[in-house]
Amino acid sequence: MSLIRRASPLTALLLTLAAAAPALTPAVLTEARALRDRALADDTAYELVRSLTTEVGPRLAGTPGDAASVAWALRTLKSLGFQNVRAEPVTVPRWIRGDARAEIMAPWPQPLIVTSLGGSVGTPVGGIEAEVVPVTTFDDLKSMTRAQLEGRIVFFTFRMERSRDGAGYGKAAAARSRGAAEAAKLGAVGMVMRPAGTSTSRTPHTGAQRWSEGIPPIPAMALSNPDADLLEQQLASGNPVRLRLTSTARWDGEAQSANVVGEIPGDGRADEIVILGAHLDSWDLGTGAHDDATGVGIITAAAKLAGEAKPRPRRTIRVVFFANEEFGLSGARAYAAKHADAAERHVLGMESDLGAYQPFGLTARVAPDRLPLVRAMQSVVEPLGIDYLGTEASGGADLGPLRELGMPVMDLKTDAAPYFDLHHTANDTFDKVDPALVRANVAAYAALAYLAAQAEGGFGRLPKVEKPVGPAVAPAMPAQR
Amino acid sequence: MSLIRRASPLTALLLTLAAAAPALTPAVLTEARALRDRALADDTAYELVRSLTTEVGPRLAGTPGDAASVAWALRTLKSLGFQNVRAEPVTVPRWIRGDARAEIMAPWPQPLIVTSLGGSVGTPVGGIEAEVVPVTTFDDLKSMTRAQLEGRIVFFTFRMERSRDGAGYGKAAAARSRGAAEAAKLGAVGMVMRPAGTSTSRTPHTGAQRWSEGIPPIPAMALSNPDADLLEQQLASGNPVRLRLTSTARWDGEAQSANVVGEIPGDGRADEIVILGAHLDSWDLGTGAHDDATGVGIITAAAKLAGEAKPRPRRTIRVVFFANEEFGLSGARAYAAKHADAAERHVLGMESDLGAYQPFGLTARVAPDRLPLVRAMQSVVEPLGIDYLGTEASGGADLGPLRELGMPVMDLKTDAAPYFDLHHTANDTFDKVDPALVRANVAAYAALAYLAAQAEGGFGRLPKVEKPVGPAVAPAMPAQR
Repeated sequence: MSLIRRASPLTALLLTLAAAAPALTPAVLTEARALRDRALADDTAYELVRSLTTEVGPRLAGTPGDAASVAWALRTLKSLGFQNVRAEPVTVPRWIRGDARAEIMAPWPQPLIVTSLGGSVGTPVGGIEAEVVPVTTFDDLKSMTRAQLEGRIVFFTFRMERSRDGAGYGKAAAARSRGAAEAAKLGAVGMVMRPAGTSTSRTPHTGAQRWSEGIPPIPAMALSNPDADLLEQQLASGNPVRLRLTSTARWDGEAQSANVVGEIPGDGRADEIVILGAHLDSWDLGTGAHDDATGVGIITAAAKLAGEAKPRPRRTIRVVFFANEEFGLSGARAYAAKHADAAERHVLGMESDLGAYQPFGLTARVAPDRLPLVRAMQSVVEPLGIDYLGTEASGGADLGPLRELGMPVMDLKTDAAPYFDLHHTANDTFDKVDPALVRANVAAYAALAYLAAQAEGGFGRLPKVEKPVGPAVAPAMPAQR
Repeated sequence: MSLIRRASPLTALLLTLAAAAPALTPAVLTEARALRDRALADDTAYELVRSLTTEVGPRLAGTPGDAASVAWALRTLKSLGFQNVRAEPVTVPRWIRGDARAEIMAPWPQPLIVTSLGGSVGTPVGGIEAEVVPVTTFDDLKSMTRAQLEGRIVFFTFRMERSRDGAGYGKAAAARSRGAAEAAKLGAVGMVMRPAGTSTSRTPHTGAQRWSEGIPPIPAMALSNPDADLLEQQLASGNPVRLRLTSTARWDGEAQSANVVGEIPGDGRADEIVILGAHLDSWDLGTGAHDDATGVGIITAAAKLAGEAKPRPRRTIRVVFFANEEFGLSGARAYAAKHADAAERHVLGMESDLGAYQPFGLTARVAPDRLPLVRAMQSVVEPLGIDYLGTEASGGADLGPLRELGMPVMDLKTDAAPYFDLHHTANDTFDKVDPALVRANVAAYAALAYLAAQAEGGFGRLPKVEKPVGPAVAPAMPAQR
């Protein structure tokens, strides 16, 4: 790896191709390129996105839309000729958004547009009213005292940076995930935040949050960015700013959902699996177009097209539409638990969960001696604008548990800047999906999946991680108030 | 006029300057250029927009925000040194938006984001549910029969074109103004429309509508553009599409508001008035930043800066913040009625009501022999990118009644494409205002107002129109259901 990174691009390429020669035959490489180009003229994925957003729409875990999406997925995979199509049951938490309202009461009364964060409790019927205390980041909360926060509403003001790699998201999402729970420990009665997202529209970004054991939960809401601006303008006057929050959000136990699985059976090594993941659930504000109907469409079309290539894929290409990624990774953990015994047979995993935007890079976490194979695979998708970008790969949230069981993963890097303009907002709708970018993604996934299914010797294994079914990120249901 | 238009640009310029020489002295032209450049470094207008949107926000006629805006305007004009600052009472209709919801019930249930059109009635408590009949334009409704519409919900699908001159707005707004009333005549029970606006966000564009005498009103709502797309996608399936509409919109009689007036008294010809207009009210979904807080800020800063120029303006520069432009032009009609006897002393009128976007042109409707003066004035603002674009000028909605009384008008043309992306939506907020573009507008209005206040001989008079207080566009309160 270090040798290749230090070498000139040409030298690196030659080394790569030489090393990969045993893994991928010229015939397979040629067919992968042809497959890539066929995918660039195929709108199967785009039409699947249209279908899922039109015929199902919002599909938050445990809602009627969630159940409708499972039915949609089963009939869609069957109609496209996938084999072993099945629903694998997953228990999911059920949370009901209800209505959320916020109003500045002083110094200058104005309504604000807000939405509850996923898992928030509601307010008493008349709402809560309190003075606002601005705090920049989640980390800044640690230096606050109970005297500063008790009986007040915390307002996280940190603004997410917009960038191609989406690096700003994690920093902004910390307040969303844990801000209310930490503020509650210091006696705060409510939490509002500048959203973990870059929309300039008055469409707040929702997302999951977690409660701390034993701390009575408080209502937690995201403002839109323009509403956060307005609140900051009023705070800048130096006058005390009072907010009233009203919300009917509530928890409603658990529900049954499912991971939906379909396969293109391998020809020769059918017991070895290349897994393509996406998640079937969505947040409820939009129709989950880029998050993650595009992923569902992209991996489905990619697997179908790869299955039609000649020579046929030797390994099985399995698509998995995971249940409830958004609100606790229920499907990811259920899949890993159910298939733990077969973890070794999962040769490589890739997930599409960053929308359908311009691909620009490929990263791969595989056994170090298999990196030349990765470079050979990247050379096939390079004409799509996809550079090799190293070994920092996660496989995506849903494949995390399998990766921790040792499964190698690849990440297709796509432009995250426009993605976080609509992520978890009402604006995540079909009209924002560009068919040309969908095709570019399908071309990449189809070629990579096909090559992975053919590659002699596979990708090795990763070191296993202690906690084999992934981090316990499921939001706990809070104690009743 | 035709001579000038046919001549080469240079010839035209020379002719213009020669003809205008008696009207504007070199000293005045020099000072106007310096005033223009001072305005390009002045953020008074931008800070006024910040103040009005922060300290008042939404200010729909008859609401507490409306009253707060009148108080804001009086104290703001006084603090800036305007003279004869006063509120001239105006009676306005009061309409309460309430909540509006729409839901596709079949073939595939999904919620839609909607807002009531201004003046719409509400629904019964349980809402109304009916099959949807798509109709493209308002004109297409005329070929529909009662059998096609009775008991159904009409859906106007026409999409407004996005363009610099905003020409698509009128065509799209026809359905908004009169679509529900005409559909009701044919037995429709509700109306939804693709909005008269170009937002690609899920922020519907509201706006005024009118009722027809004797026709029981029906609920009328605007979808956002993405929601109109979704409804069309479901209709494209060929299945009957059913909608449920719920709304608590209602009328609530009348209220008192006011036009707010302030003056820079003239030095020598104080009884002659150059009037700069904007409207103080706004729709209630956003904070009325571009519609029309920017206009309020621009004309105020322009008048103030012009008043500081030397030689001082000979004519009085009067700023008028009109009441209730949005929902019936109440303030425009009240002003014209109150000042009809002084109409002849209104030498020229200009209104800023297209937001603060890039200026690109000037049109003027003046006595034909005064066009050379217009060209000389345009030459001063030409470095701002403002071309002379002919005699098609209206003076804006609020100055219409004065124009019909014979007052000459000028229009500063600005880029309407981004304006109609947020017009009458929740997205019309301060964060969308670019201080550099505000300054460019102030520079143009300041220079033009100053030159108009100095010009020897004025602008002549326009022919009077029969109906002297303007078209009766006030939405009549509908009969109770």
